[in-house]
Amino acid sequence: MRIERVAIIGLGLLGGSIGLALRERAPGIVTTGFDANPQVRARAGERGLVSAIAQTPAEAVREADLVVLCVPVGAMRDAAEAIAAALPESAIVSDVGSSKQSVARALAEVLPGRCVIPAHPVAGTEESGPDAGFATLFVGRWCILTPPEDTDPEALEALSNFWAGLGAKVEVMDAAHHDLVLAVTSHIPHLIAFTIVGTASDLEEVTRSEVIKYSAGGFRDFTRIAASDPVMWRDVFLSNREAVLEMLGRFTEDLTALQRAIRSGDGETLHDLFARTRAIRRQVIEEGQETARPDFGREH
Amino acid sequence: MRIERVAIIGLGLLGGSIGLALRERAPGIVTTGFDANPQVRARAGERGLVSAIAQTPAEAVREADLVVLCVPVGAMRDAAEAIAAALPESAIVSDVGSSKQSVARALAEVLPGRCVIPAHPVAGTEESGPDAGFATLFVGRWCILTPPEDTDPEALEALSNFWAGLGAKVEVMDAAHHDLVLAVTSHIPHLIAFTIVGTASDLEEVTRSEVIKYSAGGFRDFTRIAASDPVMWRDVFLSNREAVLEMLGRFTEDLTALQRAIRSGDGETLHDLFARTRAIRRQVIEEGQETARPDFGREH
Repeated sequence: MRIERVAIIGLGLLGGSIGLALRERAPGIVTTGFDANPQVRARAGERGLVSAIAQTPAEAVREADLVVLCVPVGAMRDAAEAIAAALPESAIVSDVGSSKQSVARALAEVLPGRCVIPAHPVAGTEESGPDAGFATLFVGRWCILTPPEDTDPEALEALSNFWAGLGAKVEVMDAAHHDLVLAVTSHIPHLIAFTIVGTASDLEEVTRSEVIKYSAGGFRDFTRIAASDPVMWRDVFLSNREAVLEMLGRFTEDLTALQRAIRSGDGETLHDLFARTRAIRRQVIEEGQETARPDFGREH
Repeated sequence: MRIERVAIIGLGLLGGSIGLALRERAPGIVTTGFDANPQVRARAGERGLVSAIAQTPAEAVREADLVVLCVPVGAMRDAAEAIAAALPESAIVSDVGSSKQSVARALAEVLPGRCVIPAHPVAGTEESGPDAGFATLFVGRWCILTPPEDTDPEALEALSNFWAGLGAKVEVMDAAHHDLVLAVTSHIPHLIAFTIVGTASDLEEVTRSEVIKYSAGGFRDFTRIAASDPVMWRDVFLSNREAVLEMLGRFTEDLTALQRAIRSGDGETLHDLFARTRAIRRQVIEEGQETARPDFGREH
């Protein structure tokens, strides 16, 4: 099974990066793209994110071997409905959504009997839209595939090779486990960052201008992920509700314990945790998921 | 009043950066340095962090116009006691601690009648120790001075000029207000980061190896500040307890409201907050406290 024609539905950061990465790394593959927003379609055409811009989702997928849905998780069902009639019998349908159980359910319902393999490249930046994508977004990042049990092994292999071809490292995982893992490594960190940035900008005793001036003390790191796409993240929290609430419960338990340690002046508990968390960063760097340069390599 | 001889007590990230910045930007100033750890003294000598390494704190300050205490907040009192007898009558004593009311109290008690002007340069990285410092750490960052009411205006001006000479922007503030502002912009972000990194590494359902592998989804940003010096941060939370607990209360209130929105499927509340926080980052960038390049300018 060879993937020679790829349709990309949604031409923002992820869709655009797939298109640019294919152009650079697999120039033999023909890409067609669609976005519901005409301005995004126009800009995508100017940047050359795909070989051809289609005017409808059906037109984009008509000859595709692989369709990648790159829309917010809450829009996956509509996107699948819009391509259903025109989708070739043999095409693989995949996506890039950050939660997988709800997407798997929606796609299976709308596209019964088709080869649906949900996927999640764990990569991104705080930018969004057709100008945000770049060809190296997936290099060295993990892409998690969550194939249903009855998935054709050849299709799974073809999709794995597709992502490896974009520079990603591929892992296969159960959708429910994916949603729990990503709740911890991505969804809760975003929720916390959105919260603290909101809290800080709503205070009466400290002005917003002060928060911004003195943000180099740590706050500015949180503003990066709190600048991520609002619609995408709304959909992530609503679609992965159970795992997010479960992990949020663990986090607030731990935060309450630290709060008590601070109130009671228990320096040992604080120091023990802080010494332990320092080691985690070294492991993240060793695994190649982070730069070793201080301050993320920000210029000084 | 001219500052020509500077003593630096504590030769870690902050003390070392002050020494290196002086060497580069004010080569006429003579610096002497002391660190309680003999290995740090040796390494500081090798790197040339100061003009001369002293073997005791008293020896370091004996001829100083300005003494800068660069030790953890909880060690300020001991450091002040160690220099008290040798301190020249006219010297300014300052520090770089992240909380200011407790430091101001400790220094005023140990050094009655002396010119004490607490200070806090809002700059740093996750690194610590004598190898961590660099000459441009303070460039474009704010340094907050919290002079007591009876401070000699000339001494205040001299200290302001000193920090401006290292590239910092200087602000004068009441110590109590400083502690509230920094609780929001620095202490709570650190506490949250330490907590979530601890939570994530203690789960049973998700392995630590999975957390590390998929950290590019957002978690890795938190590991940076959770890698900060454990002793320094233990002292910050214990010394700024009231402001930290107050701000932590606001944060958990807001987090609980979002938790409820997720549980009840209230997408509008989520979207409204997320759209608002995105704007804050733009302001942080405009204020020059952050890079505009995506992902903090991490290499891709």
